[in-house]
Amino acid sequence: MEIEIGRDLFAHEAELAAANRRLFKEKGITALNLLAAPGAGKTSLIRKTVPLLKYSVAVIEGDPASSVDTDLLNSLGITAFQINTEGGCHLEASMVAKALESFQPKPGTLLIIENVGNLICTAAFPLGESIRMVMVGASEGDDKPFKYPDIFQGADAVILNKIDLKPYVDFDSERFRRGIRALGDQVPIFEVSCKTGEGLAELAEWLEQRVDQLWKEG
Amino acid sequence: MEIEIGRDLFAHEAELAAANRRLFKEKGITALNLLAAPGAGKTSLIRKTVPLLKYSVAVIEGDPASSVDTDLLNSLGITAFQINTEGGCHLEASMVAKALESFQPKPGTLLIIENVGNLICTAAFPLGESIRMVMVGASEGDDKPFKYPDIFQGADAVILNKIDLKPYVDFDSERFRRGIRALGDQVPIFEVSCKTGEGLAELAEWLEQRVDQLWKEG
Repeated sequence: MEIEIGRDLFAHEAELAAANRRLFKEKGITALNLLAAPGAGKTSLIRKTVPLLKYSVAVIEGDPASSVDTDLLNSLGITAFQINTEGGCHLEASMVAKALESFQPKPGTLLIIENVGNLICTAAFPLGESIRMVMVGASEGDDKPFKYPDIFQGADAVILNKIDLKPYVDFDSERFRRGIRALGDQVPIFEVSCKTGEGLAELAEWLEQRVDQLWKEG
Repeated sequence: MEIEIGRDLFAHEAELAAANRRLFKEKGITALNLLAAPGAGKTSLIRKTVPLLKYSVAVIEGDPASSVDTDLLNSLGITAFQINTEGGCHLEASMVAKALESFQPKPGTLLIIENVGNLICTAAFPLGESIRMVMVGASEGDDKPFKYPDIFQGADAVILNKIDLKPYVDFDSERFRRGIRALGDQVPIFEVSCKTGEGLAELAEWLEQRVDQLWKEG
């Protein structure tokens, strides 16, 4: 059985993403889509980077089940809103638009959308974001760009997290970088540890410059 | 937009899985579906456990792209066949049936099917396997059973890999076990390290007993 819905579905999603882009602009929000496998450290990155940013930040958490991450962020004073996909493998633009009906970030907010932990399906569903960051943990291995190329295409930044684990895992940074460079010649690669804080200041600085630039471009 | 294909699709997949089950029986093969997130150590587990098994083993590798894992296993003398899903997020029963047209494991073989790295979509597509193992790396965090409950439902064994990293990551074994126990009361949980080899003998012993039992049951 082949289901011939691929093209229509993606065209439809692209329209919804464009609608979100207009919605974000109306609301004065800059949206960031944070993509990674389960357990790469997406919530830890948000938790450790948000205090370094000058912007007001709000977070949308996408998970198939539970509100573990939202509860944690809210307990730390970071505004977070949970989307449960009820087993679904990715966020869709319409879910984000719906969340923004009941959750009103103030103008000037950087909206960080933590997507569902998934290196495949999330790649195919744009959310209308202006910034797309893809994160890998060093403990996941240096072969991820070769096995999951689609997710790295069009990333504005690639983050290698858990570099504190490098001495304990067989991670070849050169192989990883070679894989990323083959997919995105110019994309910046940040090596960070959400545990030790290493590299987060550089990432936060890049992110602020990127958001400032987007504001200037309107 | 809602696409009302869910029920039909899953019924269709269940039929294809049942057809695979008959095919495996005809060929005298026992099939194992190995499920995990990207980078959990599926290929390392196969590489380190196969030499401990008395059975002849063949491997099907499912990946969205590349033949990295198949090349590695073949170079180690483990018979492996690559299925590239071309970006697809899970293996399907029909892909396995097709692979078995060009790849003929001898009767008595344990066929290990390494599914695509994905904790969500793979859960919904049975392959006709008799044994279903779900693996998590300690570096992925102890919250996986809470966030990705579907994949753990119906597992015959849960494997916690990378226990050598426990001293360096915040992993609460009790919380992980509590999460697994809430989903599968009796499922055995094996703590292993594919790096140090710890726990692999116990896992191999359990697996042999399970395969023996399946053979007896016919």
